[in-house]
Amino acid sequence: MITSDPGTSLDSMTHTVVKKTSLTLLGLGAMGTALARAWLAAGHPLTVWNRTPARAAALADAGARVADSAADAVAANGLVVLCLLDDASLDQALAGADLTGKDLVNLTTCTPAEARARAAWAEGRGARYLDGGIMAVPPMIGRPQAGGYVFYSGPRAVFEEHRHTLGVPAGTTYVGEDTGFAALHDVALLSAMYGMFAGAAHAFALIREEDIDPTVFAPLLADWLVAMAPSVHLTAAQLSGGDYTKGVVSRLAMQVAGVPTFLRTAEQQGVDPQLIAPYFALMRRRLAEGGEDEDLTGVVDLLRR
Amino acid sequence: MITSDPGTSLDSMTHTVVKKTSLTLLGLGAMGTALARAWLAAGHPLTVWNRTPARAAALADAGARVADSAADAVAANGLVVLCLLDDASLDQALAGADLTGKDLVNLTTCTPAEARARAAWAEGRGARYLDGGIMAVPPMIGRPQAGGYVFYSGPRAVFEEHRHTLGVPAGTTYVGEDTGFAALHDVALLSAMYGMFAGAAHAFALIREEDIDPTVFAPLLADWLVAMAPSVHLTAAQLSGGDYTKGVVSRLAMQVAGVPTFLRTAEQQGVDPQLIAPYFALMRRRLAEGGEDEDLTGVVDLLRR
Repeated sequence: MITSDPGTSLDSMTHTVVKKTSLTLLGLGAMGTALARAWLAAGHPLTVWNRTPARAAALADAGARVADSAADAVAANGLVVLCLLDDASLDQALAGADLTGKDLVNLTTCTPAEARARAAWAEGRGARYLDGGIMAVPPMIGRPQAGGYVFYSGPRAVFEEHRHTLGVPAGTTYVGEDTGFAALHDVALLSAMYGMFAGAAHAFALIREEDIDPTVFAPLLADWLVAMAPSVHLTAAQLSGGDYTKGVVSRLAMQVAGVPTFLRTAEQQGVDPQLIAPYFALMRRRLAEGGEDEDLTGVVDLLRR
Repeated sequence: MITSDPGTSLDSMTHTVVKKTSLTLLGLGAMGTALARAWLAAGHPLTVWNRTPARAAALADAGARVADSAADAVAANGLVVLCLLDDASLDQALAGADLTGKDLVNLTTCTPAEARARAAWAEGRGARYLDGGIMAVPPMIGRPQAGGYVFYSGPRAVFEEHRHTLGVPAGTTYVGEDTGFAALHDVALLSAMYGMFAGAAHAFALIREEDIDPTVFAPLLADWLVAMAPSVHLTAAQLSGGDYTKGVVSRLAMQVAGVPTFLRTAEQQGVDPQLIAPYFALMRRRLAEGGEDEDLTGVVDLLRR
């Protein structure tokens, strides 16, 4: 169901002679500006609009057509990409725009529910709607080899039609017809990342007052996280199969036995354990509920309200 | 200062003809048993002892000499490796043993403070002491290519003397003369790993009730975590240099702006945000204290008590 494409490198673009799709981009924050520059560099005729005009002016020098209003910008092209501050910004920006026959691609950060509501809103105004979730920071845009990509969800036909153009600034990963899935994948992966950063922050705090150079410690930390990240495959297999004791690498009972050492170390190093203690509490709860022969998958169930 | 060695593969061992160091191992839980089998397979004469004798009997078939008491086991060799349940177990096991002239290598999980106290205790009884923290699960032991390794700290000379023997079950990474450093590195990396697992659990909980196959989602999650893990290098460089605005990839103000979307998504998906909310709260606190132009490094400071 998922289709991934690493993106179109600028090098390969210079060897193609096909006519480049013309498009409109609303929103020129750091991310919008990076997207605009990537499309312009690849030769796509681009109309831009931003609430505050100064940022658009800079892009005019790079070849963008700057529209006086969002409505004019929308009128200029059939493909309209949105990269605004938040979901509420769309109502403001598009209030006077005629969306009939347009293909809206919304890269504005939103929740799955907001994306689904926005799809219905767009369809009610005669537009087709794709939602996107950007898995990249602005410096990765226009450099497909940097590994950034965008999740897309919504009508597959709309995605396929614009896939090449959408693949110019970053790779594309289509995750389904359900319009909310791009935002859901986006939020899920970013949430997991913040969990990893929380764990790393705790680790750095532990060594902070010791005679340990953080830049010598960091490669050990990064390598360990990279080595342990594939553990999510076991979690997925157990969630999928329903048997949380299948293929267990490290029994929950053993892992919980180590928890006091982690908490005592934090205390002895003068570190508030607030970022890791909630997970340990859930491990203990699952153990108390009979999960001793499982690994860690049971924690997922305890997060459901 | 740090010295890493990937470990000695069994294949290369079969081509060496040097005399293998004889050693003693106390403690035959899952990890101790795996260590014992690795040394036996590599041809090291090994004396073992376990509190409950049944596990030792199984190793006798593999060539181990089984001692009747811990004191006898300690008496048998100059190099004595400990892999017991916890720090308190050492007092019990070694109560009647003569440690004079012994080299103790303690792989029992403990805190840095416990390791330092244990080093003083050992020296008071005439022994030299190395502490170790195992970064592996039992199935990775004896398979150096599996990437598991052990942190060691304490007198460098003792480490160098036994480095080859210690490298048989898993790679070795020496992290300093301070005896507490192996345990500190061990706990820090494992704590960070649990943070990552907490984030992953939240991510799986978010998709749990949707028509998304966890085993299709997992590769996206693993790849993203692997791609983002090197962010710890920026954190380290900023902690080391003291300027948290240097080399910023994503401004804290921008990242905090995304937090409501993460929390709303959790709420809409019926997921308790307890595993990620504390980190977001610290991001907001750092922003409120003036960190808008920083990335995420300031959170580390907020964890210090």
